[in-house]
Amino acid sequence: MNAIDRLTALLTKLPGIGKKSAGRMAYYILDADPSYAGFLAEQLSTLHTLIKRCSVCGSFTETDPCPICSDPGRDPAIICVVERAQDVRVIEESREFQGRFHVLGGLIAPLEGVSPEDLSIGQLLNRVRRDNVKEVILAMNPTVEGDTTALYLQKLLKDTNAEVTRLASGLPVGGDLEYTDRLTLSRSFRGRIRM
Amino acid sequence: MNAIDRLTALLTKLPGIGKKSAGRMAYYILDADPSYAGFLAEQLSTLHTLIKRCSVCGSFTETDPCPICSDPGRDPAIICVVERAQDVRVIEESREFQGRFHVLGGLIAPLEGVSPEDLSIGQLLNRVRRDNVKEVILAMNPTVEGDTTALYLQKLLKDTNAEVTRLASGLPVGGDLEYTDRLTLSRSFRGRIRM
Repeated sequence: MNAIDRLTALLTKLPGIGKKSAGRMAYYILDADPSYAGFLAEQLSTLHTLIKRCSVCGSFTETDPCPICSDPGRDPAIICVVERAQDVRVIEESREFQGRFHVLGGLIAPLEGVSPEDLSIGQLLNRVRRDNVKEVILAMNPTVEGDTTALYLQKLLKDTNAEVTRLASGLPVGGDLEYTDRLTLSRSFRGRIRM
Repeated sequence: MNAIDRLTALLTKLPGIGKKSAGRMAYYILDADPSYAGFLAEQLSTLHTLIKRCSVCGSFTETDPCPICSDPGRDPAIICVVERAQDVRVIEESREFQGRFHVLGGLIAPLEGVSPEDLSIGQLLNRVRRDNVKEVILAMNPTVEGDTTALYLQKLLKDTNAEVTRLASGLPVGGDLEYTDRLTLSRSFRGRIRM
């Protein structure tokens, strides 16, 4: 196994990268100016020392607390609960949300051995009580695990003053009824809104 | 711009990797055991010192000449000419070819400023004459640039003893006439073979 094969094998572990794409990437890096491989190597070796988890919300950050948790312009009384740290970025890019975040670190999935204790649910409840949170928006994916986790959190949060909401599920904008699966269509009916 | 953004920006330069995939990859690396980022960084920083170009055929190799050029079991009288070093691997994986290779390093493309002098055409002619090559298989992609380069090489090689052939172009195995473009269909007609 030569150096190209070793690099290709490592790249194959990345999400969505198969053997062919990994090979294309390895050869691209070889063909490119060696400084590119150098920059990439440098970023990779410093990544885990520079980036930590925010002690408040659990998202990835260079400063603790993270820029969102320490921004006085963001409403601490509204918390958006997401599964993973990268979901924070997706929601931030939509510029739709002005509150704070809470990263669960996963979803309840008994078959995969993930129970509520493995998630940062205790910290969420503490934050909700301490900051007298008015609304908790559950923004987990609309999957079986996402819905299970949302239901679980909703029951726990009943004892607090927070209103619990869930992101709407339905037809994607620009989508087509004909290509929409049955479950999504059924949800978009149940969640229909008055015009 | 924090460390995640810098890594994402670098990953976006890889072939076939858009902003979303690069972000997914960066977060995967963050989530994974730090040793993975370490291994990847190590492979990237040693890649260009370990891998060189074979002085005979121009493909990437750790030893010079490369394992194929120095393999006495591979027929030096048949040369398969490819555009890029990674094409050697693709052909090797098919186990169809038992001769040697020659990497041109590109294709003639006047609009992009690539002229015959930029390619290793002189070295190819030297090899063909020196090793008394019987056949030169032109394995460039069936594109405008690939065909132009093939035609150019065919003219130059007329003065040698080598027979010049070109990979067959036509319907892909398992393909469907209905989804085949007009040019490919036309080529598969012109190149039809007697059964």
